[in-house]
Amino acid sequence: MTLVLDELGVDYVEGGWPGSNPKDEEYFKEIKKYSLSHAKVAAFSSTRRKDTKPSEDPSLNAVLRTDVDTAVLFGKSWVLHVNEVLKVSREDNLEMIYDSISYLKSHGLDVIFDAEHFYQGFKDDPDYALSVVKTAEDAGAKVVVLADTNGAMMPNEVYEITKRVVGTVRIKIGLHMHNDSGCAVANTVMGVLAGARHVQGTINGIGERTGNADLVQVIPNLIIKVGLRALNGSSSLRKLREVSRLVYELAGLQPNPYQPYVGDYAFTHKAGVHVDAVLKNPRAYEHIDPETVGNSRRFILSELSGSSNLVVYLEENGIKVDKKDERVKRALMRIKELENKGYSFDLAPASAVLIALKELNLYREMIKVEYWRVIDESGVNLAVVKVNGQLEVAEGVGPVHAVDLALRRALQKIYPELSRVTLTDYRVVLPSEVKNTESLVRVTAEFTDGVRRWRTIGVSTSVIKASIEALVNGLDYYLQLSRLRVIEGAQRSP
Amino acid sequence: MTLVLDELGVDYVEGGWPGSNPKDEEYFKEIKKYSLSHAKVAAFSSTRRKDTKPSEDPSLNAVLRTDVDTAVLFGKSWVLHVNEVLKVSREDNLEMIYDSISYLKSHGLDVIFDAEHFYQGFKDDPDYALSVVKTAEDAGAKVVVLADTNGAMMPNEVYEITKRVVGTVRIKIGLHMHNDSGCAVANTVMGVLAGARHVQGTINGIGERTGNADLVQVIPNLIIKVGLRALNGSSSLRKLREVSRLVYELAGLQPNPYQPYVGDYAFTHKAGVHVDAVLKNPRAYEHIDPETVGNSRRFILSELSGSSNLVVYLEENGIKVDKKDERVKRALMRIKELENKGYSFDLAPASAVLIALKELNLYREMIKVEYWRVIDESGVNLAVVKVNGQLEVAEGVGPVHAVDLALRRALQKIYPELSRVTLTDYRVVLPSEVKNTESLVRVTAEFTDGVRRWRTIGVSTSVIKASIEALVNGLDYYLQLSRLRVIEGAQRSP
Repeated sequence: MTLVLDELGVDYVEGGWPGSNPKDEEYFKEIKKYSLSHAKVAAFSSTRRKDTKPSEDPSLNAVLRTDVDTAVLFGKSWVLHVNEVLKVSREDNLEMIYDSISYLKSHGLDVIFDAEHFYQGFKDDPDYALSVVKTAEDAGAKVVVLADTNGAMMPNEVYEITKRVVGTVRIKIGLHMHNDSGCAVANTVMGVLAGARHVQGTINGIGERTGNADLVQVIPNLIIKVGLRALNGSSSLRKLREVSRLVYELAGLQPNPYQPYVGDYAFTHKAGVHVDAVLKNPRAYEHIDPETVGNSRRFILSELSGSSNLVVYLEENGIKVDKKDERVKRALMRIKELENKGYSFDLAPASAVLIALKELNLYREMIKVEYWRVIDESGVNLAVVKVNGQLEVAEGVGPVHAVDLALRRALQKIYPELSRVTLTDYRVVLPSEVKNTESLVRVTAEFTDGVRRWRTIGVSTSVIKASIEALVNGLDYYLQLSRLRVIEGAQRSP
Repeated sequence: MTLVLDELGVDYVEGGWPGSNPKDEEYFKEIKKYSLSHAKVAAFSSTRRKDTKPSEDPSLNAVLRTDVDTAVLFGKSWVLHVNEVLKVSREDNLEMIYDSISYLKSHGLDVIFDAEHFYQGFKDDPDYALSVVKTAEDAGAKVVVLADTNGAMMPNEVYEITKRVVGTVRIKIGLHMHNDSGCAVANTVMGVLAGARHVQGTINGIGERTGNADLVQVIPNLIIKVGLRALNGSSSLRKLREVSRLVYELAGLQPNPYQPYVGDYAFTHKAGVHVDAVLKNPRAYEHIDPETVGNSRRFILSELSGSSNLVVYLEENGIKVDKKDERVKRALMRIKELENKGYSFDLAPASAVLIALKELNLYREMIKVEYWRVIDESGVNLAVVKVNGQLEVAEGVGPVHAVDLALRRALQKIYPELSRVTLTDYRVVLPSEVKNTESLVRVTAEFTDGVRRWRTIGVSTSVIKASIEALVNGLDYYLQLSRLRVIEGAQRSP
């Protein structure tokens, strides 16, 4: 991940808090094996403990042991924290900050000082909060970062307070915003407009409580909207969606489809009037060109959409039809009918395309599932499938996985081109309240052939049945489009 | 939902676009059967079509047929839309706006005029954008709403442009923000600070693309942070989490745990230093008291947390222990060990409590699964389970559902108090890329006895095995706490 951030052009990667846990210690050992083109790895730590000399403080010494060039040191700037959490005098707190920075500086490190709770501290006692910034400046810090640790601030307050600080000290000012009031991104922008020139945040905003400022939103706002130079400019912007996805995957989290700039829905148009207008001029309902940030335009089908959405969809799939064609209208009606029965084609347009192909008489049956049976027994999951006359058995980590393997094994004997298709994502959407499990289970699946990606859906009262529908749809979609010669480079099936 | 919004104290509920689809038509018929205490129901429409008299325009007449007192009418204020989407002259567009408002006014309706794309329009051609606002004012609109339809604006721009408009016209100014730049909430606050006094948004921000301004964040920001009077003040604030949940449920969406103010994580503390400080003074890491918005404080266990989190957790579960107790440290080590193996106790603290009980020697084995087998056959899912000597079979909608039913049926014979426990949520977290399905599957389950709620986790390479672990953990948690007399009113087990 550090290497990816380096390639993105960030100046610093805060690698962890050495001494707080073994995982972070391990990181600093490991990262030394790599050479970074631009980014510096920084180690995080608090200021020294009270009544301890810096040279005897375990956390500061753990930073030295990591052998990094830069430390990010956090200290208190709100009297509430000084009095009630640290329980030291105001003067002692300033000394702890001064000492800790000096100690690290004397060992040749650059120090970025994070003034925790700066904004709330400033509102309570501006003189004390400013004295913390000045102490860090005097001790030789490279940057002082003003933190809204509790995410308490409104954008106008951030602007005014940051401007006061920038006008008072000479040191470079940075920002660290949390999202508890839903303003972390906006507050970062306002702080930069007030003169801050160093920004902290996380990819996808992952962090305590509601999270930190999401860099995936902050970066394009600063480059595209405010017009600043940052990172490697447009080449960094184009990587944003990819970097965002990678972080979700490493963190084991599902991507947020509504995420500004990089989410699946960020440039997805649903309402019929929006689709019509975007076809005339994308600027009509898009604030930027989606390609700028590595994203793409999508149209979705739903009860709100008209024939335009479906026609656009089919065109994207290489099938030209007339919006006024009766068969298009019939396909749309069939889609709406299925949506009433629990299907949702928003995220499974490939299944909608299959329905349209049937109404357009372009569909030919290519997969016929004749029999399936799943056997689960303490730890072993087997699936037996008979499809297009081929009987196959497979073992998987779960029943659905076993079915997927058995299906493919059987079908690849007849359609070898299916070896290009891989399943990239698979989700079971159970009814949110299990007391209603009598209701329907939805399964969505995502496939790729290395060039394009497509999603399908299956709905049933049985998870396995719904999964088979989604899996078969995904393979069928590829076969149908190959047969119609829509997918370039694919072998034509018999 | 309209009734809930009425109770919350909102002024207007925009019920739909009559004439665009039958669902919306139905709404206006249905809502007449109810009497609202404060809110007015408004119908949405575009201005009349070009080359049509208002009296012959289907959309305007559909509004009249709904019999509402207020119409929300949207029209164009950006020359790009006038030229390229509507394809009319600038003057014709102004006439369409004037005519449409006058027509509805002449039928006794109040008109709220939404100036679509106002901010982008103003940046392109301020004079034309302002002339749209003045036209609506002259035609007798009650409010003119400035819309950032594409979510393109930065907070400083919204402030400056809104201030210009408020200083130029006398009519009340409203705001309608989209979240494409991640600033919808902040932009609404900035517009209000510039003098706007009418705010549009949606609960949870549900809307086109990345969504609208989330009222669940805007409302507390305006009341608590900016200090304005809005809705019914603090009594409305306390309902926010409940209203947010209801909307997610009705929309069939999973709540966003990171949502500011109302999300599960909004006041959840993970880092050991944060937990220590919050125990001294909650203001240390909370921007507001969670109860203010109907939310509550949570502590979670993870590799970042110290003994404090676990001790607080056990206390919340009625078990008092000393932070320095060696057994607490051993329990924490065991938890961290399991997290390294793929467990995640963040959302499954009941499973962590069971681990702690074992280390504290407070645990007694009460459930013993001796045998299980799942049989799936085209549409029929059976589970056979032998637990504590009881053999049971059940049929479910999926293999996991069948196992759940069989387990409970068997255990209730021995522990009748389990009839109070219901499973309220059940999720399978598959590895995000199925090519890695050799990796682990996590299952989390949520239970309630009508008073408290608890969550458990199971991890395995098999979905069924992980499910059994989570299900058994959930029932076991209830039995252990009943036995320890922690759960009041529960029967003591033998």
